[in-house]
Order: sequence, then structure tokens, then C-alpha cells
Amino acid sequence: VSHIDDKLWSDIIAAAGADVAWHGDAVDRFDPGFHDRNLAARCVVAPRTAKAMAAVMRLCNDSRVSIVPHGGRTGLAGGAVSKPGQVVLSTENLASMVSIHARARIAQVDAGVRLSALQAAASKQGLSPGIDLAARDSATIGGMISTNAGGNEAFRNGVMRHRVLGLEVAMPNGEILRDLKHVTKANEGYDIKQLFIGAEGTLGIVTRAVLKLEPLASGHATALVACPDGQSAVSLFSRLQNSADVTLAAAEMMWRNYAQTSAEACGLRSLRAFMEAPAELFVIVECHGPGEGGEEALEGELASAAEAGEIHDAVVARSERERSEIWRVREDSWSIDRTYPHGLWFDVSVPLDRIGDYVRDLRARVAAVDGDLMVFAMGHLGDGNLHLTITSGQPEARQQYDRVAAAVYHGLADIGGSFSAEHGIGTEKRAAFKTHVAPEMRAFMSAIKQTFDPHGIMNPGKLLSE
Amino acid sequence: VSHIDDKLWSDIIAAAGADVAWHGDAVDRFDPGFHDRNLAARCVVAPRTAKAMAAVMRLCNDSRVSIVPHGGRTGLAGGAVSKPGQVVLSTENLASMVSIHARARIAQVDAGVRLSALQAAASKQGLSPGIDLAARDSATIGGMISTNAGGNEAFRNGVMRHRVLGLEVAMPNGEILRDLKHVTKANEGYDIKQLFIGAEGTLGIVTRAVLKLEPLASGHATALVACPDGQSAVSLFSRLQNSADVTLAAAEMMWRNYAQTSAEACGLRSLRAFMEAPAELFVIVECHGPGEGGEEALEGELASAAEAGEIHDAVVARSERERSEIWRVREDSWSIDRTYPHGLWFDVSVPLDRIGDYVRDLRARVAAVDGDLMVFAMGHLGDGNLHLTITSGQPEARQQYDRVAAAVYHGLADIGGSFSAEHGIGTEKRAAFKTHVAPEMRAFMSAIKQTFDPHGIMNPGKLLSE
Repeated sequence: VSHIDDKLWSDIIAAAGADVAWHGDAVDRFDPGFHDRNLAARCVVAPRTAKAMAAVMRLCNDSRVSIVPHGGRTGLAGGAVSKPGQVVLSTENLASMVSIHARARIAQVDAGVRLSALQAAASKQGLSPGIDLAARDSATIGGMISTNAGGNEAFRNGVMRHRVLGLEVAMPNGEILRDLKHVTKANEGYDIKQLFIGAEGTLGIVTRAVLKLEPLASGHATALVACPDGQSAVSLFSRLQNSADVTLAAAEMMWRNYAQTSAEACGLRSLRAFMEAPAELFVIVECHGPGEGGEEALEGELASAAEAGEIHDAVVARSERERSEIWRVREDSWSIDRTYPHGLWFDVSVPLDRIGDYVRDLRARVAAVDGDLMVFAMGHLGDGNLHLTITSGQPEARQQYDRVAAAVYHGLADIGGSFSAEHGIGTEKRAAFKTHVAPEMRAFMSAIKQTFDPHGIMNPGKLLSE
Repeated sequence: VSHIDDKLWSDIIAAAGADVAWHGDAVDRFDPGFHDRNLAARCVVAPRTAKAMAAVMRLCNDSRVSIVPHGGRTGLAGGAVSKPGQVVLSTENLASMVSIHARARIAQVDAGVRLSALQAAASKQGLSPGIDLAARDSATIGGMISTNAGGNEAFRNGVMRHRVLGLEVAMPNGEILRDLKHVTKANEGYDIKQLFIGAEGTLGIVTRAVLKLEPLASGHATALVACPDGQSAVSLFSRLQNSADVTLAAAEMMWRNYAQTSAEACGLRSLRAFMEAPAELFVIVECHGPGEGGEEALEGELASAAEAGEIHDAVVARSERERSEIWRVREDSWSIDRTYPHGLWFDVSVPLDRIGDYVRDLRARVAAVDGDLMVFAMGHLGDGNLHLTITSGQPEARQQYDRVAAAVYHGLADIGGSFSAEHGIGTEKRAAFKTHVAPEMRAFMSAIKQTFDPHGIMNPGKLLSE
């Protein structure tokens, strides 16, 4: 490992500009974001162009100095953690272009643009990026591509991989790979850009992208639904997906103890009272429909679902305030951590037909590890992505990590699920990566890493990168 | 280049079974499919399991004998062409599994299964593969993955890359890479399976896949619409995409001379008469809607489009026969070749906002090459994929290939289009591949080829493979 000497630093400043390079205490101007070690490098450069980005990368490459790419710094897997001797390369100054081509239904966007900014620009033209997540105000497009972000709309619009039509990437050798297609159909050999999607900045730095847009649906009807069990929740999801009367926009699931704890911590009394219903889990459904917002149509579907025994009961939001309260129960996941700290977090994918059994069996496996551990489960019903917080509320919970992880990952591969759904591997899931990804698959990944980043300067210590 | 000796052949027979290996005249039992040189190897092996497939590949690899993978043999780019000394490895006996998991909305399918067989199995459960193309009765799932097939529904469901959740691939070294995920969200390092999608069998042979399914829409309303120009056609498309009353299932475009020639060749007199309308192009729109099939809703939208000047006139199909006649004009593209032979074919993607201008400018460029050349253009309106037949009807047309190709590809990259949309590179577009794909991109592709197929035995002479 090399370190940054005065010569390299002055070369970097010459390439990027002195006003976009900080080291030492000057770095305190930045919010470290989700991990307190994100800025441990104490050295941040935020080039204004892809060309300057590539130039700085080449300088680091020639000096064998490591680079840690930064987007919004709100990733949950430790992919942006840095240490002294490394250079943090931030995309925050690559944020001038948000170009919406309404007729072609695409957006050309710089990597540093926040998701909420793209959503705002697209909505002015009646369009949407077709992807949404709770971190929309911090997450950057480049970071979302590098982590292959998922979110609430993946069941109908896919994940970030399915939104990207074109990509521009700055490479460690100073080259810029440009494949800025505006079209869905293009078969021009191996699709190299797919490798950068979800690579967590270990191969290059995404500087610009072309994304597919979707029509912006207007009006929505939102309900909180009490479902007897996982199977009935999946049946409700299918019913709404197949409905001729409503278009399903979101379907989020929360198991009973998650919903109750969150509603209580948020002080939402009437929702908390509703959660006394004899339900194994609660589902938030949001629909677009004909008319004002499709409330009547949604109520009709819910009545049929109740007749079919798929749901116990439901509350339909009658105002924007009621709607935001329902969503708060789901999105304020910190309320679980405030009530029961020292949580172990997991982010797994489970095929829809297995989700009820998986959570039930998981509870039994976790109880066998330690009877004091509680499993708080919630996630995206439409794609089977579960977010789990497992804790006793006591500091000792941390010591159980390996055994709890084994309980969470048990059998997932056999049923076609994934130990790593949408947050990425980062630093947090490297052990699981080695255990659960086949050696021959990892060997091909290492060969690709060696090809794109022969000196191993890109985001070491993350994903497969040493 | 090595050749098949008796020892290798007996080893292959031992690995795959004598009843699934043919050479010499025995190969005449097969239909060569689209290219008469597809079976020029005179040696076909069709293993019954992925394991046997991998074993045969390893034998060939060890002997440095080349392999040409075959699916349905109806590819249009020459990707299945073979020559003496090579072994054709067919997936036709990998066709026993078509397993629909209705609640999880996925299908697990062997590579040799035909698209129409998957469609039939899925439709029994109210589901659809979400991809459809005219070659549905011949195209295999493995071939569609290897060419990243597109088709009519790509504007809403993406191309094959967006349908694949999991993949199993037999590798030249005899390994089987297995990543048979059943879920949309999985981030487990670089997504190796993306490299096989669209690789045209130059890296390995896809043996099984997990595909995402979509709800099967019931009922349809179909219309043939006369549009003043490309821009108005795109406006009509946007209108129907945004409609709260209908769900757009297909939008296919045919320029005037294509539509007229095809209707005439098919003997469809009343449609041919309709095509006297003063329109630059004709669009087939097919919608799902509330009620019987949404005919009324579609008529309502078309009336609004007429008021807005987006369309001249329209005929709505009143029977299944009328519907199939409308589709025949589009799908029987051979009618152009029968009427005007010696056509040069192209398959390009053009961003929607440029499509009208592109075709108009292309006519001018082609006229500058040779005033006798005619441009017949049709394609998928929703994704801007144009299929072009350019010919004078005379054998001399062939000699103009290079100049016509230059006219077709002119400016496409600058506007974010593609010289190769959905048919692939194969043998036919290798020259264009070298001209239009950046050298640094090709260098990375070559490195990947070298990693996966170090002895270069997989489908030589196709795509980038020497």
C-alpha cells in the first residue's frame, strides 16, 4: 500500500482544482453519512468532470494509491468506508446534468445527481425514474448504479440494472468507457456495462448514465391491511397485480412485532390500535386507479380479498396525512433500533411462494440460537426482499452474529433466494460472500477485477477486493 | 484448428449417448434452419443433461475442437453457421423441464424449450413470459438468452436480459456455473451471468434458466392506424402508454411502402385499400382494456388522437380473423423479399424522439448511394427498433452492401442508437462490430473471452471470436 505524498497531492490538485480537494481537518466540512469511518481517509477530491475524475484516478493508479468512491454516503453495507492513505473520490460535483428526453422516455444524468432531484425533473414531464427508496434525498444515481439499488417499485420496474440503458465510467488507467445508449435494444457484444452495475466501485467510477423512465401515475389510494399469514399476503398481492381496476404501485410487508413496535415508537395510536387485529403480518398497498385516486376500486378489491379470506381487515387512508402515517410505520425503521438497540441487520431475498414459511422457520432457528433474540421482519412484498433486524436489545446480541447469520442464510440458496438482496456486500457481508458464492463464480469475478483494475486500487476491502 | 478423430468421437458418444450423436449423412435428418451452412459441420451432438453437455465440451476443449452451439437455428445473423471439423452442440434434448411457480411468478426452463411451449405452460396459470416474437415456434429459451432477444413487448417488459433471474451454463472446461436465482433482487458481486446473455454462445452454453413471468392480460383490441409521420406515431404511442383506460400491449410500425407491399403480397385487399390514406406510416396498436377486450376504450383514445392530429384514420379489428390479417401485414416480412428480392437487411435501434427524422434522412442517404434502391422500414414503435430491407430488387443490390451499411449506421451512435438491436452480431455484422464498438470496449471483451474460453473453441468466427 502506498501513501499520498506531496507530489501526488499537487498533481491531483492540478488535475481536479484546488477548490475541490480537501485533506486533514478540511474534511470535517463533510457529513460522514451512515458509517463514521466513511471519511477516515481524511482526504476527499470531488472532480467537476469525468475527464478530471479519470485523470485523478490515473495519478492514483500510477502511484498505487487506493481510491474509495463516494456517492451519497448512505449505503448500509460499508461500501464507502475509508482509511488513512486512501483518496476518497466523490461524485458530488458531477451533478450539473439532469436532461429529460420526454418523447424518448429517457433521462441522461450525471452520477452525483440525487434520486429525488431526478424524480423532480422527470415528474415535470409526467415521467418517473421507475425506482424509489427511502434514501431518495441522499442516494445518488452513481451510487444506486454501483450498488444496483432496488427499492419499492422493483416488482414492476426491476432494479437499477433494469433501468440503465447507457453508462459512462472512469477507469483506473485514466480511460473513460462511454456507452451512452438511449435505447433498450442494443446487442453489440458482451455487455461490459453490466459489470459496473453492482460492482460497488471496485472496477471504476460511474460518471454519467442514461436511464429509462416510466409514465408518472397520478393519484393513489393507500391502505394498511391485516393479513392472516404470509401466504394470504402473497395472494392479496397477486389479486392486486392481476386487477383490471387498479394498478399496484407498492406492496410493503411488516410482520406483526415490527408494525406494532414502529407504530408505537412513532406515536401513531390509531394505527397501533388497528394492529391488535389477529394478523401475522400487515401489508401497505398503494394503487393507482381510475378516478380521483382509485380509492373505490381499491376498496372493491379489498372487499373481495376479505371474502376470499386473504385479509382480516383494512384501513384506507382518507387524507394525505393518514397516508403518510401509514408509510411512516414502514419507512421509519429506526424506530425498531431506538426501542431495541444492538440489532443485527440482514437483507435477503426469498421467493414469494416461500416467504411465509421462511419467516416462521427463521424464528424457530433464531430461538434455538438464543431465546431472548427477537426477529423484526419487514420488506418489499412484490419481490420477496426481507429486511431483518434481530436483537435482544442487549449489547450481547452482537456476539451472536455468526450463529444468527447462519440461521438467516440457512437454506436460502436451495430455494433460489439470496443472502444479499439490495444493500450490497461492502465490508459487512464479505464473510457471507465467501461462504455463499461458489468458488468458480468468485474465480471469474477475480479475473474480471484483475482485468479492469490490475493494481487493485479501486475500493480495496469491499466486495471481493482485497 | 483440430479435427474430430475416432478417439474423440467415441469419447463423445460415451459421454452423451450414441443415440444423440450424428455425423455425415445422418445429419440430414435435421432442418438446417435459416442459414444453409448451419449444419456444414456434418456433426451434431444433442446431450440430454447439462452434465453430459459439459462433459462433451470438456472433451472438445481438451482436443481443441471447436463447438458451435445450436438452439432453434432460426437466428438471423449467422450465429449458428458451422464448418467441417467443428461439433454442433444442440440443446434440443435439454427440453424436459418447464416448471411454472405461479405464486412466485417465475418459470424454471431447460434451454431447449421453445418460446411457444413456455408461453403455453405459463398461460395455463394466467401468466406470460413477457416476451414475444414472430419466431416463437422455433426460438428456444437458450437461444433467446444467448442472443438477448427482444421482440414486441420489450417497451414494457424489457428484453431477455431483463427477464432472466437465474442461469445455468456449461463451460468449455467442463464446469457447470449455476446461479439459478428465483428472485429479482440479488447482489452477490459482479453479475457473471450477464456476460452469457447476448454472448451468442462464444463463452459457454446456457443449459437452464429461471425467468420472470408477467400476468397474462385477457382480451385485446387491435387497430391499424394511419399516422401522418414518425412524430405523430410517437405521440400516439405516448398517449396510449399514459392512458388510464387501456393497457398498451403492442405498437408496431410500418412505413407506407412496407405496409402496401406486404398487404398486396398477402392479398389483403381491404387493408391495402385503407393504405391509400395519406400517411407516412401505419401503426398496429394492440391494447388490453376493461370489458370484453377494450375495443370501446381503444376507439375513445383513437378519436382523441384524431382530434389532436396524431392520426389520419384507423380500422379496428372486429373479429379474430381481422386481427390476424392486420398482424400478418407486419409479421409476414418475407412478402417484401418475395416481391423485391436481393434485399440487404439491417436491424437498428433509434431513440424514439429521432425515429421520424432518421428514416427520412436515411432515404436521402440511400438515394445518394443508388437511386434504384428502395428502403422498406418496419419495427417496434415502443422501443425504436427498426428492421430495414434495402433493395432494388436486382442482384446488383448486394454489391452496394458496404455503402448502404454506412448510410444506415451514419450518425446512430451520436444520437444514442445502436447498429445492432436484437438479432445479434453473428457472422453478418462482424465488420460493423469492429467499426462501431470502441477499441477499449472490444479489448475488455477479448479479455473476458480469454478468461472464459482460453482455447477459443466456443463458436469461432462469431461476434468477436476469431
